[in-house]
Order: sequence, then C-alpha cells, then structure tokens
Amino acid sequence: MSLANATTLPLANFTPAHFQLNVAGKVATVMLNRPEKKNPLTFASYRELTDFFLAAQKEEDVKAIVVTGAGGNFSSGGDVFEIIGPLVAMETKELLKFTRMTGELVKAMRACPQPVIAAIDGICAGAGAIMAMASDLRLGTAESKIAFLFNRVGLAGCDMGACAMLPRIVGQGRAAELLYTGRVLKGEEAERWGFLNRLVTKENLLAEAQALAAELADGPTFANAMTKRMLEMEWAMSVESAIEAEAVAQALCMQTEDFTRAYHAFANKQKPVFEGN
Amino acid sequence: MSLANATTLPLANFTPAHFQLNVAGKVATVMLNRPEKKNPLTFASYRELTDFFLAAQKEEDVKAIVVTGAGGNFSSGGDVFEIIGPLVAMETKELLKFTRMTGELVKAMRACPQPVIAAIDGICAGAGAIMAMASDLRLGTAESKIAFLFNRVGLAGCDMGACAMLPRIVGQGRAAELLYTGRVLKGEEAERWGFLNRLVTKENLLAEAQALAAELADGPTFANAMTKRMLEMEWAMSVESAIEAEAVAQALCMQTEDFTRAYHAFANKQKPVFEGN
Amino acid sequence: MSLANATTLPLANFTPAHFQLNVAGKVATVMLNRPEKKNPLTFASYRELTDFFLAAQKEEDVKAIVVTGAGGNFSSGGDVFEIIGPLVAMETKELLKFTRMTGELVKAMRACPQPVIAAIDGICAGAGAIMAMASDLRLGTAESKIAFLFNRVGLAGCDMGACAMLPRIVGQGRAAELLYTGRVLKGEEAERWGFLNRLVTKENLLAEAQALAAELADGPTFANAMTKRMLEMEWAMSVESAIEAEAVAQALCMQTEDFTRAYHAFANKQKPVFEGN
Repeated sequence: MSLANATTLPLANFTPAHFQLNVAGKVATVMLNRPEKKNPLTFASYRELTDFFLAAQKEEDVKAIVVTGAGGNFSSGGDVFEIIGPLVAMETKELLKFTRMTGELVKAMRACPQPVIAAIDGICAGAGAIMAMASDLRLGTAESKIAFLFNRVGLAGCDMGACAMLPRIVGQGRAAELLYTGRVLKGEEAERWGFLNRLVTKENLLAEAQALAAELADGPTFANAMTKRMLEMEWAMSVESAIEAEAVAQALCMQTEDFTRAYHAFANKQKPVFEGN
Repeated sequence: MSLANATTLPLANFTPAHFQLNVAGKVATVMLNRPEKKNPLTFASYRELTDFFLAAQKEEDVKAIVVTGAGGNFSSGGDVFEIIGPLVAMETKELLKFTRMTGELVKAMRACPQPVIAAIDGICAGAGAIMAMASDLRLGTAESKIAFLFNRVGLAGCDMGACAMLPRIVGQGRAAELLYTGRVLKGEEAERWGFLNRLVTKENLLAEAQALAAELADGPTFANAMTKRMLEMEWAMSVESAIEAEAVAQALCMQTEDFTRAYHAFANKQKPVFEGN
Repeated sequence: MSLANATTLPLANFTPAHFQLNVAGKVATVMLNRPEKKNPLTFASYRELTDFFLAAQKEEDVKAIVVTGAGGNFSSGGDVFEIIGPLVAMETKELLKFTRMTGELVKAMRACPQPVIAAIDGICAGAGAIMAMASDLRLGTAESKIAFLFNRVGLAGCDMGACAMLPRIVGQGRAAELLYTGRVLKGEEAERWGFLNRLVTKENLLAEAQALAAELADGPTFANAMTKRMLEMEWAMSVESAIEAEAVAQALCMQTEDFTRAYHAFANKQKPVFEGN
C-alpha cells in the first residue's frame, strides 16, 4: 500500500478564484492576475494562495512551482483599500489573526516540498516582495522594482518573516537599508546583491522560469525536497548539529531508487532519468 | 498619564567630555573629536559613548543618530598608549571588566530604538570598525580604510561581537579574511561587499548621513524601532518562529496612529506625516 | 610542566597513503594527489584526511594548513566507482556510518586550531567543493569550476553540512541555486559572490596560498585559533550572547605574551614578533 497514491490529486481539484493556475507536466504556474491594479493581494487571495501551497504539500505529480504576475508586474502587495482600510478599523485580536494569516502563506511556501521559483518583472512590493523572498529562487528583469514598502505605510519592516529572510539573502546591512527606507531595489542591483539569481529579458522571463522549474522537476525531487527542508532549518542550528542532521538525511536519500538510477546511468555513460523516489 | 513624557530629556542633559554632540531636529550627531590622533577610543570615551546610547533608549525627541569622526577619519580604535598599555598590566578580573565594558557599547548601540548611521571616512579601525559595524547603516567614502586590526596587536578577531556581526553583513568567507589578516578594506570594495550601504564624497558625507537620518526620523519611528529590534533578534530564530514573532509585532504596529495616518494620507493622495506613535 | 610539549609531534608521525603531505616551517600542505582521476575522494582518503585534521588539533608546530590538488584540479569529489557503487549496495546502518564519516572530515577541519586555506584550480566538485567550503579561506583561479553535484547523482544538497555552510558564505538565494541545480560556479563569479577570497593565476596559486598561510602562521596563533572557534560558534548565538562569549575569550587573549609583545613592539616602533602563546 502506498501512502502517496491518493485517489485524487489535491491540485487537480484546485480551482482558484483569485489567481490563474496552470499545470503543465510537473510544473505548476501561479499567476497573480489583476493586472489593472498591479496584482495586489487581498484577504481572499492571501487565503487562497496559502491553501494552494498547503495543498501542494500533498501533491505527488507537481514537482516545481513558478509564481509570477500578469501584465508586466509581479505584485503591488496588500491593497490600500481592500486591506489597509479594513485593518485600520480592526481590533487587536483581528489584527493578529490577519498578520498570522499572512505569515501562514510564507510558512506554506517554505514547507511545500516543491522548489518555488519567482518570476519577477515590474512592481514587486510589500507582501509581493515577501512572496518573492519566500520563494527558493528568483529570476527577474532589469525593470524589476522590488520594495519592502512597510515603513511607507507606517508599519515595521518585520512583516511575514522579512527580518529573518532578507538578511539571510542579502546580508544584514543591505537588508536594514531596504527595510528602514522602503526604497526600490532595481533588477541589476538585486542580481548584484544575490536577491535575484539571474536577470532575464521580459520576453523570456516566464519561459526561463518554467524551464528552470522543469529542470528541477526532472531532477531527484525526493532529494531536492530534503535540500529545501534543510536550507530552511539549518540557519538556527550549529554547523555541528547541521552535519549530523545532514548525515541522517543523506543516508535516507541514498536509499532512493534515484540514487541507484544515477549510478547505473553514469556507469553506462548515460544521462540519469530521475523519478523522485 | 504618559510614561513617555519625562520632565527632562535625558539627552538634553548629556554634555559629553569625550566627543561632540549635536542635536538638530530629531537627529543627534556624535562626532569623535580628537583628530590629531585620528579619534581613538579611551577608557573614558568608551564609557561615555555607552552612557550616551543608554540614555538614547529613554530619549523621546531624538529619532535617529549619526556617528562620525572629525578631521577626515572615523576612528583609529583603542589607543595604543591609553588603552593597550594599561591592559597589558591588568589582571584577569580587570581585563574581563574592560572587555565587557566595550561589549556594553555595542549592546547599547543595538538596543537603542533609534537607527544609528555611521558616516565613515579615512581610518576606521579596531574598535572604530566595530562601532561602524554595530551601526544599522553605513555611508562611507572611497577613501575609507576599514580594518579589524585585532590580530595585529596579538588579539583575537572575536572582539565586541565581531565574529557574530561581520559574517552576517559580508558573509563568512570575507569576514574570516578580514578578521584573520587585519587587512584594510577600502571604500569601493566595502560597498561591493555590502559593508557600506553607499559611497559618497568626502564633502557630502556628513550631510548625506544626516539627511538619511532625518528621513528615517520623519518615518514611523515606533515601527522602525520594531524593525531594528527584530533584525537584531531573528538571526538566532528559526524562520517559523520569526514569522510568529513578526505577526505579533506587526499587529502592534497596526494599532499606531502612524498606520492610520498613512491610510488617510494615501486615500487623500497626500504624503503621510508620521509622528512615531 | 607543559601540557603542550608532547615528546613526539603528531603530524611528524603522519605518513599519509592517500595524499601528499608537506610541512615547511609552520605551514602544512595537503595535496590530493591522484591527478589522472582529478583527485577523487575514496573511503580510505576520507578516513585519512579526517585523521590528519584530528591529529592537527594536537600539533604544536604547524600553525596553518593549505589544502590543494595535484595536476590542475582541486578534487572531483566522491569517486563514482569507488564510492557511489558500493553505497548503492549498502544497508541503512552502513550508509549512516558513511555519511557520518564524511561529516567527521568537515568537523575535524573546523575544529583544528589552524586556519585552513583551500587553493583551488580546475574541478572542485561534490565532496571536493565541501572541503573547499569547510576551509577558512579560499584562493582560486579563474579556471576554477566549483559544483555541488549531489543532485546530479540523485542525492540531496544537504551533504556534510552544505546547507548550513554555503548560505553563510554566499547567501541563501545563491546557495539554493547551487544546491538545487548542481551548476558550475566559475572563478570570477565565485569571487564576486564571496566564495573565493581572491583570484590568482594558476602559476601563483599554491605559492600565494602558502604565503598567506605563512603570514597567518606568523601571527598571534593562539588568538587566531580563538577567532576560528568563535566564527564557528556564533552563527547559532544571539548577538548579545556572542558579545559576552567574546568578552571572555578576548580577556583570555589579553593575557598572552603575544599581546604584551605587540604592545612593546608598537611602543618601540618595531614590528611585533608573535609566538602563539
């Protein structure tokens, strides 16, 4: 009996109301799709995106996820009238419910076994910048405008884990500047700082992100999911503990068929074909 | 009754003997001011600087702090004759008292709610480099010469938290090089590595640092102080814990008037005016 | 009675079968030396390298270590036929024994008091890339080809502590890319990212690494060993705890003769001569 063979695929049942979902082969593409407002997040879209990434945890056929935005922008973040307006009127308990819900989206993105690749063009601001940061890899264009706008709306830079994640990506000094000032980080500088993994043209952005996702999806996905989990956990470990944790994790991966397949492929001078088990 | 309205401002009573203090609007500028010796630190100046940053914790009117040096240098660090000489003659208990006192300066700089901006030109060495590093942001000139000189005087690079702070700013490999060799990091390379946030000219250095400080001081300073605290705390947290800590912190910031002011300003297409409450 | 004066030097008794060992002055050079196969690691060489670095912990005369490879390559990592083949046939218990043994090599490299300098040219892949990463400093050529190949052989990027060490050196986004894709990082990009400390020519690589090692070996080596230990420990500490740990460590270093020597040398306008005590 296989625990994995659910009779229905969770994502196959997922029909989002607040974003476009496209599954091609082993790659799912999430496209924020309200281009006339630069793809803002709303209470409903936060919830639905979180549910999507939670569902992805049980999905066996999708092996990598691309997140992008329609119409030349990634996301403008929480909408002023649809999110900030209501928040201003809320009481403590409701506010915490909201901030926890937004944090749940980041947790879900980081807990799903699929690597998440953000494909960023144009505005990538506020909670949109957080979604980019919560992704595993980030491709962007020279026209990308990344901004952690929280202090511009009277809030702290510590939103959805930003003060933990951003310094780990670009270093403490640069993270502090972005979070204190809310200034725009453009594509080239973002690549120089290691926020973006690669600069690509607008025309090729989505295709390159999907090609990279497909490449990872054709890799040893059981092992890649272990890489993702460990990259997440090991910042809060000593190197010594990390070495022990990795010894156990890798010994497990050495018992997958993918490892055996790779060995036989190399021995026969062939390219290995991985199946994620 | 307001806890905040002390009848006297702590910093207004602060008349330093060992550095220049200038308060203009919401920005305090600390200028190390012994240019003929390149602004060294002494037992007395360590103590006084620490007292200043401790006092800043209770200060309500100063919202950002600039640290700089007079005469074209930031600071040459602990003075050979005024500090190293006496240390060589000290016993264990006194030595630990001294190293803890120097560490108190870093702790005080990082615990005060105001963002601290270092304006660096010329020599920035030893404990001077640590003060720069303990600041939140760093502007410098191409002529900046940053050096963690400890191993040149027979000491370890682990001084005042350097082995924790420097790797978080420039990465482990580059931090190791600077701490093992004591070599000079010049302005351009320091910007490339993310140690300096921005290169400016000698002529504009102090003015740009004060302008940036004034910009932050006009921001949502309650929220910015929360950003500072979280940037400090979250390196030693898992991302998951950080997300929860930020959910609570941001829910608190959402109850400030600054957040409400920002919403109304945006709704009226105006620039928000923040008051730090 | 001196604890340090062992009657025999551990490294003097060390006659490796699987690498070349050269000790000149205070610098030991470890050269992986099977150039026809690009210096792969085998079960026996893992064990012997680990034993070497464990022995170095008790060695008093060697103060810095260079690691390099013969014939224009650093190391191709675990050999396909000598390591991967046998692993494919192993049971759980043996696999964990193996992954723990490889982790022991990293632990030994990081626990020895000597700074370890990797001199990298050509292929630096898999466990070879890990050895480079476990070193304190890395010099390389433009022709260096660094690759964390684990996912290419069906394994996870979390090998021998990679998910802890690599993000601390190059940041989380770039580490994720290297570990998920197994792609080659060439010399120039490796320097730009802070993985390599310096680019040098093929001709000068070993000489420059040995010169840097000799420079460190002539420094205050008791204090440098403290720097190494603290750089290792402080990622998992709060900055506040790190400051206290460093206060204690530096107070200890202030009681070394090297510190006194440095003071007298400076007072006499001479260059200090350190002895590591």
